[in-house]
Amino acid sequence: MSVLIVGTTALDSINTPKAKNPRLLGGSASHAALAASFFAPTKLVGVVGGDFPAKYLKLYASRGIDLTGLERVKDGQTFHWHGEYEVNMNNRRTLNTVLGVIENWSPKLPGEYERTPYVLLANIAPAIQLTVLEQMSKPKFVIADTMDLWLNVALADLLKLLKKVDCLVLNDSEARQLTEDDNVVSALAKIHKLGPRYVIIKKGEHGSLLSGPGGLFVAPAYPLKKVVDPTGAGDSFVGGLLGYVAAQRSGSVEKHLRRAMIHGAVVASFCCEGFGLSATLKATKATINARVRELEKLARF
Amino acid sequence: MSVLIVGTTALDSINTPKAKNPRLLGGSASHAALAASFFAPTKLVGVVGGDFPAKYLKLYASRGIDLTGLERVKDGQTFHWHGEYEVNMNNRRTLNTVLGVIENWSPKLPGEYERTPYVLLANIAPAIQLTVLEQMSKPKFVIADTMDLWLNVALADLLKLLKKVDCLVLNDSEARQLTEDDNVVSALAKIHKLGPRYVIIKKGEHGSLLSGPGGLFVAPAYPLKKVVDPTGAGDSFVGGLLGYVAAQRSGSVEKHLRRAMIHGAVVASFCCEGFGLSATLKATKATINARVRELEKLARF
Repeated sequence: MSVLIVGTTALDSINTPKAKNPRLLGGSASHAALAASFFAPTKLVGVVGGDFPAKYLKLYASRGIDLTGLERVKDGQTFHWHGEYEVNMNNRRTLNTVLGVIENWSPKLPGEYERTPYVLLANIAPAIQLTVLEQMSKPKFVIADTMDLWLNVALADLLKLLKKVDCLVLNDSEARQLTEDDNVVSALAKIHKLGPRYVIIKKGEHGSLLSGPGGLFVAPAYPLKKVVDPTGAGDSFVGGLLGYVAAQRSGSVEKHLRRAMIHGAVVASFCCEGFGLSATLKATKATINARVRELEKLARF
Repeated sequence: MSVLIVGTTALDSINTPKAKNPRLLGGSASHAALAASFFAPTKLVGVVGGDFPAKYLKLYASRGIDLTGLERVKDGQTFHWHGEYEVNMNNRRTLNTVLGVIENWSPKLPGEYERTPYVLLANIAPAIQLTVLEQMSKPKFVIADTMDLWLNVALADLLKLLKKVDCLVLNDSEARQLTEDDNVVSALAKIHKLGPRYVIIKKGEHGSLLSGPGGLFVAPAYPLKKVVDPTGAGDSFVGGLLGYVAAQRSGSVEKHLRRAMIHGAVVASFCCEGFGLSATLKATKATINARVRELEKLARF
């Protein structure tokens, strides 16, 4: 079955101590949609400006991503994030952000999109995530991703959203901030009380945690000897995760979530090995499955 | 088979935002020996002063820990660490350290100790770890633990030690410091080049990594909803780990190391649930095995 993904479609300029990479294809929806497209038919809901390179549209299309929901504003500017990483590639800071066409965007779904069973509200303002969700007709499973920015500037919208989604994905420091609880494990129970039946906490190189009706799952990350650029790794994780779930022909979502997280972690590991989407684009079903088998061996006891 | 443990036998005064806990039984050898004693006969090599409370000697003895190698210096002062934790219990700082009888200690092993097959050089000055190792007669498996202090003030001794041990245990920031490599996975290869066939990296709440001839193992930590005092958790981990290995009747060390790390992680989880040794003392073989089974379920995919 298919996946609908809404989020940012952006141009990312990423500086590292070793290189400058201007105007890469980026954004939460780009990373997540590419990741999901390994597993399931994927529909992208986003907005770009007239400056959005045609080659990036071709890139989406080459992955079979449905672009009917990608709005193009000819006289507008594409969302642009400019950031830099420190030597260790863990700490990043934003140098500049141009919201552009995202600023006043209110997505309208093409008619045939509303019955998509799997929905990923990738990282974007919670108000936009809500607008999309309100247009959906009884989706089977809805995941929302978020970031610290929305906890700071749009908490009320986020709390409203949490009552309407099946699963929230956030990182460990965001979980601490949202619950004012320094212990991530006890924070999980507090997040469930805000709405979502499932909560997934991303911990980067330390893996991830799933909490749901079936209890806790502690998932490893794929161990990488070299991280080139972690931008989009979290989006790739959740996109790969939901794509994997959507691709299963039988059984409950619950039954597949653990292996879905492992597949998400593997797609995220590829994402980290190159700038922008470059390394993810080189991955294949075969190389993904090989890393999943490796993780099975690495985690067995 | 039995385990010999050398390290610090200390009095720990631990402040937290909520409580002061003066003169608890602490030290790397105390935590490690208690952890190992759940699984295997344990010999303790350490030194204490005349101020060392008799009740703590009784406590060791109640666990069947062999104290023939515990030196008592009547007119000396026991090693005393005074530290405090911040609210989140992850950051700690040392308020005061009195080395006391450890300062000029040169351990001499009782004759019957030299043939102990499993040796844990728990955290103490590398020169002392070397002195003990030189008195051993063909041990089957030797693990050395260390800390950032020794990387800073006794690196030459530590590097000498690394050529003589089977396994080094250290935390992720120490691994980065030792190798000047920010990536923990690639740091592992560099540490192997310094000597040890096995390297274990402790990551606290994020679990641990084992690297050895059989490849990499990514071990989960036991997820705790509340951490009271993490002091000694690393020592408990490695003590439990080696005690578990020593208790196996057949098969290679390699074969048992993964499950040994899981058992070590579980003993460490108990350690974190109380001040000093209090919570570890309440654990039993049954409660340890129950958490091991829980971890099996939590990590399965």
